[in-house]
Amino acid sequence: MLNAGQLATEVMARCQKLASFSEDSCRIRRTFLSPPMHDVHREIAAWLSRLNVITHVDAAGNLRALYPAEHTSQPRLMIGSHLDTVPNAGAFDGILGFVIGVALLEALEGRTLPFAIELIGFSDEEGTRFGVPFIGSRALVGRLDDNLLNVQNADGVSVRSAIEQFGLNPEAVSQACLPDQTLAYLEFHIEQGPVLERSGLPLAAVEAIAGQTRMEFTFIGRANHAGTTPMHLRADAVAAAAEWIMLAEREAKAVPGLVATAGSVVTSPGVANVIAGEARLSLDVRHRDDKVRGDAVTLLTDRAQQIASSRGLSVQHRTLMNQPAVAMDPFLGNQIEIAIQNVGCKPHRMTSGAGHDAMILAEKVPAGMIFLRTPGGISHDPAESVDVEDVEKAILCGRHLLDQLADEKEFLTRKRRA
Amino acid sequence: MLNAGQLATEVMARCQKLASFSEDSCRIRRTFLSPPMHDVHREIAAWLSRLNVITHVDAAGNLRALYPAEHTSQPRLMIGSHLDTVPNAGAFDGILGFVIGVALLEALEGRTLPFAIELIGFSDEEGTRFGVPFIGSRALVGRLDDNLLNVQNADGVSVRSAIEQFGLNPEAVSQACLPDQTLAYLEFHIEQGPVLERSGLPLAAVEAIAGQTRMEFTFIGRANHAGTTPMHLRADAVAAAAEWIMLAEREAKAVPGLVATAGSVVTSPGVANVIAGEARLSLDVRHRDDKVRGDAVTLLTDRAQQIASSRGLSVQHRTLMNQPAVAMDPFLGNQIEIAIQNVGCKPHRMTSGAGHDAMILAEKVPAGMIFLRTPGGISHDPAESVDVEDVEKAILCGRHLLDQLADEKEFLTRKRRA
Repeated sequence: MLNAGQLATEVMARCQKLASFSEDSCRIRRTFLSPPMHDVHREIAAWLSRLNVITHVDAAGNLRALYPAEHTSQPRLMIGSHLDTVPNAGAFDGILGFVIGVALLEALEGRTLPFAIELIGFSDEEGTRFGVPFIGSRALVGRLDDNLLNVQNADGVSVRSAIEQFGLNPEAVSQACLPDQTLAYLEFHIEQGPVLERSGLPLAAVEAIAGQTRMEFTFIGRANHAGTTPMHLRADAVAAAAEWIMLAEREAKAVPGLVATAGSVVTSPGVANVIAGEARLSLDVRHRDDKVRGDAVTLLTDRAQQIASSRGLSVQHRTLMNQPAVAMDPFLGNQIEIAIQNVGCKPHRMTSGAGHDAMILAEKVPAGMIFLRTPGGISHDPAESVDVEDVEKAILCGRHLLDQLADEKEFLTRKRRA
Repeated sequence: MLNAGQLATEVMARCQKLASFSEDSCRIRRTFLSPPMHDVHREIAAWLSRLNVITHVDAAGNLRALYPAEHTSQPRLMIGSHLDTVPNAGAFDGILGFVIGVALLEALEGRTLPFAIELIGFSDEEGTRFGVPFIGSRALVGRLDDNLLNVQNADGVSVRSAIEQFGLNPEAVSQACLPDQTLAYLEFHIEQGPVLERSGLPLAAVEAIAGQTRMEFTFIGRANHAGTTPMHLRADAVAAAAEWIMLAEREAKAVPGLVATAGSVVTSPGVANVIAGEARLSLDVRHRDDKVRGDAVTLLTDRAQQIASSRGLSVQHRTLMNQPAVAMDPFLGNQIEIAIQNVGCKPHRMTSGAGHDAMILAEKVPAGMIFLRTPGGISHDPAESVDVEDVEKAILCGRHLLDQLADEKEFLTRKRRA
């Protein structure tokens, strides 16, 4: 039997190998159907061909590979994650989940299960190229429609033409849909946060993906001379924004599990000797409970208004995203916890603050996620990493999980939602 | 005798006429020795030729025109302001001061005084083209040296080559120096702030130009995922910056006459779903008392450090400008106050929060400034304006002032500093 430690070492090397296929020369950047995605597909196809598993690329640019079941009539389990990256990325976000899937097929050593395993490497989760995330997984749930195909980026390229330029047929995206006989979707992913590290735990079962509101607030005051305008006669948009940022931080700290972030501040005119007449801020609010999130958004919107009024400014806001929380499948969550215990680790359940392909697949099939501890909580950064020992535990966890599921007759025969 | 009201109306029209000479088609923008400056010079020369006053352009691009004294041996008084503008400017900043000077010559109706009057329209005060202000007035005090001539802008154009391209000889800048027999420099200028309007006063004597410190602070935290990083595990550069901006506002409000401004905030990576790892802010601090300003800068620098430390961030800072306060000449200040009273207005003394050419000229000769009320305190904006009634009062004030100075034997004969 293949050693999980060796497989983990191989997984690490493979993630680094895929990281070498980049749009940028010294940094990792591989957006939706960019040229290096061809190299990624070719590399993965070579690994899988050694298992006699054939890969193909669907019309949405997702890499797909089917490891057969004992019988062709048996259902399939999907295991996957995304193969695209943010700009200046690390080597593991998304990629690791797919590569662990490959290792799990290798660990089977030709043994078949009462379900097929389809590996899927999504073409887009990050949304970097078109500003719209999850293009790959949307195709699986039938949401890569004409509206999305017609989205253009700043260069005037549409999703449709990007698909064509990659050598695929955008008219065939409906064929990328989830097969009817899909049992479930499983995804391994780095946590991308510090919670597991702080808890001293290598793995966790994700019980929900937090709902997310993304808004833009614009405080509008009066641009004026920084030298000639006394403090009490100012309508300083930066000062108003700062007061509101402080408040958002305070409110989020007061509610367990709530996060609120102003990641972007743009000042106008934005020069040293002019009081800013305008400050535009992003607000990102997340929580596993949609009501808690909604209440926080209402409070922060009201307070923005109060702060602006009390300072003689106005404020405008618009909502860019309002995504409800998505529960992972409870049965799969339990099985993942058991598998984690079977590896000898303490089980842990947590909410994912980040969106994942599993959130999209959960619209149609039971979905489950396994998080791996992320050193320093660092992700979307070249310093992103994962410990090889934790990858080994994830592989062992996956092996246990596959065996557990193979024994769950009720699971194997339950009515498909797809 | 010419009616001051008619002169004021003409001054308004002339400012608007000069505003039509712009580098941009729909906005006012006239930087150092840009092509429309030729049109400005030609237009002004036409006005002055009707008074038999000849204009010339010195090697630094300043427009100069000498109205003779009773006797050629008598000293000269300089009256001026700048003819360049910021981008998207109003019609009065700088320009008005020069055009009032023209009106004062017209108001003399050929009468001579015991001093010549040299009008000067500076080529650069705003520093827009080369990032270095006061190029014109620096030439008068002998500070347009090789270092400054060699300054290049982003287009690779040097001050020297800009002078050549305008048809002037950069080797002759030393000839632009203040003449030895210069008595004093007077400048009319819009306040560019709200103080006179709030006080219900049309005019003020400037007693000092505030000292100014310009700094850049960079808070350095850890960029991280906005969804996966709990509030208590963040090192959010935007939150730290906001706390410090609030503190700077509070401290400045607590000290009379002190202003502190963070006009520019740049966040990195500056996207909605990433906690900012870096926030770079400008700080502009001004006060008439250099010690008060210095103490405020020290306090804000210390507090930036404390805020960063308490949040697990670091902070870097650098000083870009440290300009001491410049006193205007007390004798001229008194004479300006008397002239304001002679017009029937309540005298008022104030500090200028903005830098002006008078600050540079004060290095060599007694300098005085008269501020005109600025509606809404709005400047560096197309909405910048001035009331024609206030311009009329400024012209009357200037006429009184010239007559007062003509009677001040001690002033006329005091030792020149030039």
